[in-house]
Amino acid sequence: MLQNDLLLRTLRGETTERTPVWMMRQAGRYLPEYMVLREKYGFFERCQTPELACEITLQPVDIVGVDAAILFSDILVVPQAMGLEVQLIESKGPVLPDPIKTVNDLSRVRVPNVDETLGYVFDAIKLIKKELNGRVPLIGFAGAPWTLLCYMVQGKGSKTFDEAKAFCYTQPQLAHQLLQMITDTTIAYLKAQVKAGADTVQIFDSWGGLLSPADFENLSLKYIRQIVDAVKEEVPTIVFAKGAWHSLDSMAATGAHGLGIDWCIKPELARQFAGNNITLQGNFDPAKLLSPIPVIQKEVREMLQAFGPGRHIANLGHGILPNVPVDHARAFVDAVKEFKHS
Amino acid sequence: MLQNDLLLRTLRGETTERTPVWMMRQAGRYLPEYMVLREKYGFFERCQTPELACEITLQPVDIVGVDAAILFSDILVVPQAMGLEVQLIESKGPVLPDPIKTVNDLSRVRVPNVDETLGYVFDAIKLIKKELNGRVPLIGFAGAPWTLLCYMVQGKGSKTFDEAKAFCYTQPQLAHQLLQMITDTTIAYLKAQVKAGADTVQIFDSWGGLLSPADFENLSLKYIRQIVDAVKEEVPTIVFAKGAWHSLDSMAATGAHGLGIDWCIKPELARQFAGNNITLQGNFDPAKLLSPIPVIQKEVREMLQAFGPGRHIANLGHGILPNVPVDHARAFVDAVKEFKHS
Repeated sequence: MLQNDLLLRTLRGETTERTPVWMMRQAGRYLPEYMVLREKYGFFERCQTPELACEITLQPVDIVGVDAAILFSDILVVPQAMGLEVQLIESKGPVLPDPIKTVNDLSRVRVPNVDETLGYVFDAIKLIKKELNGRVPLIGFAGAPWTLLCYMVQGKGSKTFDEAKAFCYTQPQLAHQLLQMITDTTIAYLKAQVKAGADTVQIFDSWGGLLSPADFENLSLKYIRQIVDAVKEEVPTIVFAKGAWHSLDSMAATGAHGLGIDWCIKPELARQFAGNNITLQGNFDPAKLLSPIPVIQKEVREMLQAFGPGRHIANLGHGILPNVPVDHARAFVDAVKEFKHS
Repeated sequence: MLQNDLLLRTLRGETTERTPVWMMRQAGRYLPEYMVLREKYGFFERCQTPELACEITLQPVDIVGVDAAILFSDILVVPQAMGLEVQLIESKGPVLPDPIKTVNDLSRVRVPNVDETLGYVFDAIKLIKKELNGRVPLIGFAGAPWTLLCYMVQGKGSKTFDEAKAFCYTQPQLAHQLLQMITDTTIAYLKAQVKAGADTVQIFDSWGGLLSPADFENLSLKYIRQIVDAVKEEVPTIVFAKGAWHSLDSMAATGAHGLGIDWCIKPELARQFAGNNITLQGNFDPAKLLSPIPVIQKEVREMLQAFGPGRHIANLGHGILPNVPVDHARAFVDAVKEFKHS
């Protein structure tokens, strides 16, 4: 039994006493307690050791008082489980030294047994659930197939992911084959997260906003739809395709319970696009947490007012920045908790 | 007298026999003829030597057959003229080793006499106009004040420009002082470009899309408006704020003749937001030029159909990528020229 189920009730469209709040990347580099563990253990060591993943996942619940925990992990554990080498070099970003470029490269990739390859994630979830002891719900997550393809083909971060796009534009059949393999893996992965105890799951399409509306439908949403279909009956499902404001209507039509939005769309317009039967999550500019605390408080109030009561989860519009002071993060969370809709 | 004034007539809303076409960064790294000069001369040497700037500006007119030339230069010549050191390290991006962080730093910046500091640009324009000999119009340009502030404060490229944003959020008075100085310089700079012979000017707000709608109005559009006001009676003016789809209506209200849009908004919706009294420019995904030529041709036709006849300038939604084959760029231009609206 959850003591604080604001997030889940809001996702299901129920009336709640106040707006729930969490922050993307809330278990991260702005927390000194996280930095201590980051000094001592490598990135994948932290992901793969259930005790470490658990400790990191719980830090923001204890320190900043968010209404949900989100599993500490990375979207790139899926390409790794599918057979690709992934290096995560701190403050340089991910590198996949042997990216997918041709049909031959595709033979190196498989749809794995997730219990064998990603069992450490499910162990972490079980431990986190035990340690949380019902305080707040736990969010599981995975990357959207398009975003994972970006890394698997480009081999590293990019402003434009033009090599990943060129792969899709010149070898569409191969691209769709890879996207389907990622989708099948992701469905099994998220179902196993739910089985292990995740109360809700979020699909992160960090690079969905690089695509035209037509390409987003063809290369991204088509696969997100399959994932939502497979999971939505088990737990509430949140889709966050950063920058893909143009497809809020078709994302809402997937049957997802929540849609993440970034700060470049006004809440009123997002609501108009997405319709009334879905919860919106967002959309504070992460850089605004660098403002003085009174400015943060004022802008949080304006944001909550603009979303109106109900069907809203307060969050940032993207991950919290590493240089945000902890008391600014706490001010954000507290301002949401203190707000009363008039 | 211009032999090809399709671009200017389209900007003024006149009916033309076909849609004009040019490409952002058309004088750039995808052209082998440009790479020869890039090997021999440093970046600012190419900008500051009128003969080189002229040769580079004319290359795409001769090689890919675009309907307009755009001055070869860089938006960062303005911060340079204002007193900041700017280093342009090839394939690494710009570095400003002494960025603006405090009120003391601001004392290093001035609103310069543009004839003294940027005279080489006006000399280049005069030479280009002579060499073009009326074949096509010449587009002058400048960066929008917000985008220039991003570099002047952050000191280098960034995905989020969070230091530039933090500067504005924590020291708003200082930020507005700097934005006004950039604006005053830019107005003098663009007026002098027009005096030297530029037939139209484009204002590039490359990082406008990083701001929320409210911040875009406050930190960017307020200053773009002043620039458009000062220039629009002299020549047609194009505003391109990449990603700022949410403010197409208020950008149209500046009185600009043209608005650039990127590929993440459907032409029909951009037209709805911007209204009918302005020319739209765009919006082909630059990465799509890496597709096979028949795909490029098909997608160009679909784009032109979606914009409909009149009040449209065909262009990319951002700069052409360095790895685009020249015959793909030419296929893009030719496909526009051959299209007939049914």
